[in-house]
Amino acid sequence: MEIIRPTLVLNKTICQQNIELMAEKARRHNLTFRPHFKTHQSAEIGTWFQKVGVEKITVSSVSMAKYFAEAGWKDITIAIPFNILECSEINRFSEDCALNLVVDNTLTINTIGTKIKRNTGIYIKISTGYERTGIEYAAVHKIDELLIALSQYRHLTFKGFLTHSGHTYRAASKYEVQNIHYDSLKKMFYLKEYYASQFPKLEISVGDTPSCSISENFMGATEIRPGNFVFYDLMQQNIGACSIDDIALRVLCPVISKQSLRNEIVIYGGAIHFSKEFIRNSDGKNLYGRVVLQNGHEKKLLDSTNYLCRLTQEHGVIRMNPSVFRKIEIGNIVEIIPVHACLTAHSMGHYMTNKGEIIEMMPR
Amino acid sequence: MEIIRPTLVLNKTICQQNIELMAEKARRHNLTFRPHFKTHQSAEIGTWFQKVGVEKITVSSVSMAKYFAEAGWKDITIAIPFNILECSEINRFSEDCALNLVVDNTLTINTIGTKIKRNTGIYIKISTGYERTGIEYAAVHKIDELLIALSQYRHLTFKGFLTHSGHTYRAASKYEVQNIHYDSLKKMFYLKEYYASQFPKLEISVGDTPSCSISENFMGATEIRPGNFVFYDLMQQNIGACSIDDIALRVLCPVISKQSLRNEIVIYGGAIHFSKEFIRNSDGKNLYGRVVLQNGHEKKLLDSTNYLCRLTQEHGVIRMNPSVFRKIEIGNIVEIIPVHACLTAHSMGHYMTNKGEIIEMMPR
Repeated sequence: MEIIRPTLVLNKTICQQNIELMAEKARRHNLTFRPHFKTHQSAEIGTWFQKVGVEKITVSSVSMAKYFAEAGWKDITIAIPFNILECSEINRFSEDCALNLVVDNTLTINTIGTKIKRNTGIYIKISTGYERTGIEYAAVHKIDELLIALSQYRHLTFKGFLTHSGHTYRAASKYEVQNIHYDSLKKMFYLKEYYASQFPKLEISVGDTPSCSISENFMGATEIRPGNFVFYDLMQQNIGACSIDDIALRVLCPVISKQSLRNEIVIYGGAIHFSKEFIRNSDGKNLYGRVVLQNGHEKKLLDSTNYLCRLTQEHGVIRMNPSVFRKIEIGNIVEIIPVHACLTAHSMGHYMTNKGEIIEMMPR
Repeated sequence: MEIIRPTLVLNKTICQQNIELMAEKARRHNLTFRPHFKTHQSAEIGTWFQKVGVEKITVSSVSMAKYFAEAGWKDITIAIPFNILECSEINRFSEDCALNLVVDNTLTINTIGTKIKRNTGIYIKISTGYERTGIEYAAVHKIDELLIALSQYRHLTFKGFLTHSGHTYRAASKYEVQNIHYDSLKKMFYLKEYYASQFPKLEISVGDTPSCSISENFMGATEIRPGNFVFYDLMQQNIGACSIDDIALRVLCPVISKQSLRNEIVIYGGAIHFSKEFIRNSDGKNLYGRVVLQNGHEKKLLDSTNYLCRLTQEHGVIRMNPSVFRKIEIGNIVEIIPVHACLTAHSMGHYMTNKGEIIEMMPR
């Protein structure tokens, strides 16, 4: 496989191992495993999940639900507060596929109750501290309002409560992730108990990648929906959710310029390949990626004093130690471990496996 | 035109006006106008430039050069240090199209001298302070080395020096942009004088959008290559390169959730639509976009205390004043002015004009 421009390379072995480990963890804890497919957005990678028994999935848009329904999936949750302007898209959706929508307000319930004609599962989105969407867990009077609204529509079936503890992404340690996760579980458990007599089969759906990777406690939860774990990335490694060896993606980039005054190498590979997501490096500066070099027959991860430090549209700048800088030549390929796998994969649009096969993603 | 999901809307009138103004400025200063097409990446928008007499263009990749050559362009500069792994791509390039490459090292010159078979124009990339790529302007001994290397290859024609003062993007005022621009021109002028007897027809190619928009001094330059001005954006407005009314792009996004505890509205529209580029708002926080609302028959730009303050993959959060917050309903469409037009356009993949026509971009 000849690499001549920025290329997203997927290590299939690591990726399938990540999938197996998470599936095994879900089984061990008796949880439904409904992985989020927004990270990989690929029908082919989807089949790797089928091999470990996954039958239900999560997506982040109606378009993505359509793509995976056409790929044969029969049970899909669109885990973003439903956009009521897309009701007619839902009516055109395959009846063969069970569909769940997420709501956090009565206006949305009444709109879909009236405009959507098909049987649809409904999860109420709960906020347990991330502060993006959802109803504050303690606001049961508001939840009651939604449940009353829902009860008017026979074709809408209330399934349970769903939360996303996205604030684990801001955690600085495993310990902090666990604290957030326990806090979130506790709040969801409170709701489960509160509504137990009214809805004995109530589902509790949780599951960001940091919590699902780190924790062995899923008290009260019935379902997990992690997505990023399929590839992992530097952000997850930084949080403590994975090790560097668990990261399945690399962006291979040609070296196009060397700046000896600054010990910087410039690569063909920029914001349109990596996204502009960064983490804070130990020197306090923005880090957009870490560097792996071929060293004889081995690959060597450079320490984080050598890192992707600036990105423009198509260029990236790697700051290097002089001793490493001297070894790099123009025309070499460097491997970059991305900061945020979801955005990098979305930006790149397709994968090449480490065996040279091309894996397509959902077209845009 | 029914908008039901994030949609990039282009105001054709403003865009064409931006093109005319820059073309007129180039004429006034007797400069070749070689606009950078990486911002819009659209063959159709390219034709709007032809209408004002543009015949030469700049692009940022070999793939983009190919796309525009197929659209009929006959003179293209690829303004990124040439990636020597793409030599055979250049040999497959249409002979009808004049092609210029940019180099900043002898290894690249010797590689393309040997491997590229066609007549090719060569610009030497000069660094005047941006510190990304290029040879330090004062390092004439190094420039001489490149010129000697170039002189060995008959099919490579040295055209002149090219710089990009990208550090104007970090400027806090028009005054600072002008200082950077003058400093850059002065350095390029020094080179022009130094090499005048050897290369009497030497070209000096400059041209970032802030400098080209703000300055009326182009002393010594023979060509400008701005790109972003075709749309402008909040970053340019923040620098002083344009007014809000000159910005030709909006991302229209459905409102999917209201968070009354925090006066935040949540839109369907996130990092995959806007990119994660931000500027600093007056409150010290990251600003990812500003908000325009329909107000009766008029459109109203909200002040910057109402702004897009957080982005995740598909969601955006807008912080609002309570009085504005109360007027927004779920299912409304809000218009967002993007921070960085180039990355937003690239992320969205096509445009809808304000008259509802779809304008395609280069496929990825």
